[in-house]
Amino acid sequence: MTPVRARPQVPPATVARLPAYLRTLDVLAAEGHLLTSSEELATRAGVQPALLRKDLSFLGTYGRRGVGYDVPHLREQIGRVLGMAVPQRLVVVGVGNLGRALAGYAGIAQRGFTLVGLVDVAPDVVGTVVAGLPVRPLEALAELVAVQGATIGVITTPPSAAQHVADLLVAAGVTGILTFAPAVLHVPDDVDVRSVDVASELQILAFHGHGRRRAVDGEGA
Amino acid sequence: MTPVRARPQVPPATVARLPAYLRTLDVLAAEGHLLTSSEELATRAGVQPALLRKDLSFLGTYGRRGVGYDVPHLREQIGRVLGMAVPQRLVVVGVGNLGRALAGYAGIAQRGFTLVGLVDVAPDVVGTVVAGLPVRPLEALAELVAVQGATIGVITTPPSAAQHVADLLVAAGVTGILTFAPAVLHVPDDVDVRSVDVASELQILAFHGHGRRRAVDGEGA
Repeated sequence: MTPVRARPQVPPATVARLPAYLRTLDVLAAEGHLLTSSEELATRAGVQPALLRKDLSFLGTYGRRGVGYDVPHLREQIGRVLGMAVPQRLVVVGVGNLGRALAGYAGIAQRGFTLVGLVDVAPDVVGTVVAGLPVRPLEALAELVAVQGATIGVITTPPSAAQHVADLLVAAGVTGILTFAPAVLHVPDDVDVRSVDVASELQILAFHGHGRRRAVDGEGA
Repeated sequence: MTPVRARPQVPPATVARLPAYLRTLDVLAAEGHLLTSSEELATRAGVQPALLRKDLSFLGTYGRRGVGYDVPHLREQIGRVLGMAVPQRLVVVGVGNLGRALAGYAGIAQRGFTLVGLVDVAPDVVGTVVAGLPVRPLEALAELVAVQGATIGVITTPPSAAQHVADLLVAAGVTGILTFAPAVLHVPDDVDVRSVDVASELQILAFHGHGRRRAVDGEGA
């Protein structure tokens, strides 16, 4: 839902698909594949082969006819384009259920990110240790970001606190914010915001289920 | 990332923005506003006024010049379009950190959804009570969906289990699946899938932060 700005040569829609390609290449590599076809890679990534080829062409990569794509090379290339070559360090603000879930989510480390700090405002949460990290008070956020070199802030606070936390993260120097709070965040143009709103995703599904039920009128799945 | 099919008269991109408009209208209503302008509604929802007006025109709704939009009416209308008039019942499969976070997430109920079932495969989790609901074994999923009339299944399992769980949910008759597992799900055309991949969102942020650092070469935020 949040608009994304990308370097001119790579359209935002392509950038948004690169992680899925990288994830799929990781699986192919784990299975021992050294080469893959655009058909196989596209199918596994859930896109049309033509779209995959077009996306990869923006990276200057073209599969060789009859040979396909070099899996290790393409992994390395997409990873580099996504900035994975630069270690990405995260701070999570809001150590409720979701913050704890994210702190304990192995997928974050597997995909090249390091959680370097947890921050909360609740007196009974600050000082506790979650996922091996001490929960720091909000007052410590700026120092935490600076000392740890965090580039991305993750907001899992209530929506009412999200903008204030975003302001603090921006002032502390993060370049990106991932927010789970159902609130629109206003940040400077040089900070990117990605928004995940679980309830919105459910409502979009509700729309389609609702439409389908009305459209097919009881015709079974 | 997952393509979304919508009823012809409402484009998928518009559907994807409706929850934000509804959320914003809820706030305006809570503040006591009976009328709002497309400028105010758009700004609060984080879109351009022209886009908001175009989106709402697909619902056959046009603000009156000099008067704006009727907040209660627009809330009711968008809610109806999103299928909120029909009670939406969810089952969550995978009661790990994320599953527990979702089960305890008040925002889901506030936005018109009811969690009716929790399912997991771990013997030490099945039978425990989370958010007031007993965790049922995977074998009970089909019966749970049928008896509870669940329309949406939420998958928070490891990626390796996601397709199998999706197959079971589809067979049980859900019309929509929200998956947090970083894996592409293959389902029949009459089932909608929305995918939330936290690591992908982070990688997209990494791309932009990385690009910016390279592009502006140290020019501070």
